Amino acid sequence: MIKNIFFDIDDTLFPSTEFAILARRNAIRAMITMGVDKSEEELFSMLMEIVKEKGSNYNKHFDDLCEKLSIASPARFIAAAILAYHNTKTSIQPYPDVPKTLLALRDMGYSLYVATNGKTIKQWDKLLRLRIALYFKDAYVSDEIGQEKSREFFNKIIKALDTKPENCIMVGDREDSDITTAKSAGITTIRIKKGKFKDNPTNADFEISEISEIIQIMESLKTSSG
Amino acid sequence: MIKNIFFDIDDTLFPSTEFAILARRNAIRAMITMGVDKSEEELFSMLMEIVKEKGSNYNKHFDDLCEKLSIASPARFIAAAILAYHNTKTSIQPYPDVPKTLLALRDMGYSLYVATNGKTIKQWDKLLRLRIALYFKDAYVSDEIGQEKSREFFNKIIKALDTKPENCIMVGDREDSDITTAKSAGITTIRIKKGKFKDNPTNADFEISEISEIIQIMESLKTSSG
Repeated sequence: MIKNIFFDIDDTLFPSTEFAILARRNAIRAMITMGVDKSEEELFSMLMEIVKEKGSNYNKHFDDLCEKLSIASPARFIAAAILAYHNTKTSIQPYPDVPKTLLALRDMGYSLYVATNGKTIKQWDKLLRLRIALYFKDAYVSDEIGQEKSREFFNKIIKALDTKPENCIMVGDREDSDITTAKSAGITTIRIKKGKFKDNPTNADFEISEISEIIQIMESLKTSSG
Repeated sequence: MIKNIFFDIDDTLFPSTEFAILARRNAIRAMITMGVDKSEEELFSMLMEIVKEKGSNYNKHFDDLCEKLSIASPARFIAAAILAYHNTKTSIQPYPDVPKTLLALRDMGYSLYVATNGKTIKQWDKLLRLRIALYFKDAYVSDEIGQEKSREFFNKIIKALDTKPENCIMVGDREDSDITTAKSAGITTIRIKKGKFKDNPTNADFEISEISEIIQIMESLKTSSG
């Protein structure tokens, strides 16, 4: 019987890909407002090259961009870019059915957890901005667990919760990091068709288009196991 | 004849002391909302002890607070505190007569600069949030100049601008860092009575209660030198 539901965050609970693009575009616009003499498109593709090369958790994207542009006093442009980026991040919103679905699942007696790759403080920051942090009993983040999502990662969570794989279900958008890994640990899986990979094929036990469909899945699992 | 006007930022252009207290109070409230089981007053005085000990530019105040509280998984509380702190900082406002006075001084032909202690990116961040960054030709920040405000600091600015002390005027709230230092470099000084030190005595050439009074001072200086 399912007791614990694990959720991925990015592109599962909110459109993170969409917001990351908007945040970076706004950062570029702020740099131009402060006086960088380049087109938005040119700066954006330079930035995206840096993001691709250094990864999205690197924290000197704008410093590197100013260096590439040979800007002598970059502080004002870096400050403008970071401020615009953070102001955009402040406006992130969950997919509209997320808060009510999480509350309904809690009312049904399930314990909700986050299981995600990333930096622990950064992932809690997202849950807080989305105003859903208190809905979860805890968040398991790769940074703190010591490895990215994998069979081992999920085994560690199951051990920490003193539960069994058959009492758990994992919800996520990515076949590689969410579905294959959780499945290999014996956990039931729900693939949500959101974000960059929404049209990829899946081996998940269930496939959904909206988070609210989880309610029916949980009801069907109760009936079939009861 | 005065050509250049230098401005301090904190408690000169906006009520920074007031906002710092509010930002820290909101950070503490957010930690309690996330589940820290202490009173607001108790947490606030613990935080202020850390700020006093480590300085306001130290960036692990909330990490240290969680450690003092022996919190095992502090990420959610650190994230909540930082987010509330930054959201409060987003709402900083200049003293109400600042934007129009800066514009009027520009219209009168003066070149405006910032001269401040602190970290360069952090000080530009404040100018951007206050929406006055573009009013200044440049900002001279101790971090980048290599020393805090002093006779040397102002000598370096005068050299960088290829000007003379008698062409410059400095506006600030602090007798020690703004007035004595600029005066010793031969610069005319205006002390603004704002913030923590507003009732302290001054040796400044002029003393004002509101930034808008600078306009009359500049007009009187023009007449007397003309």
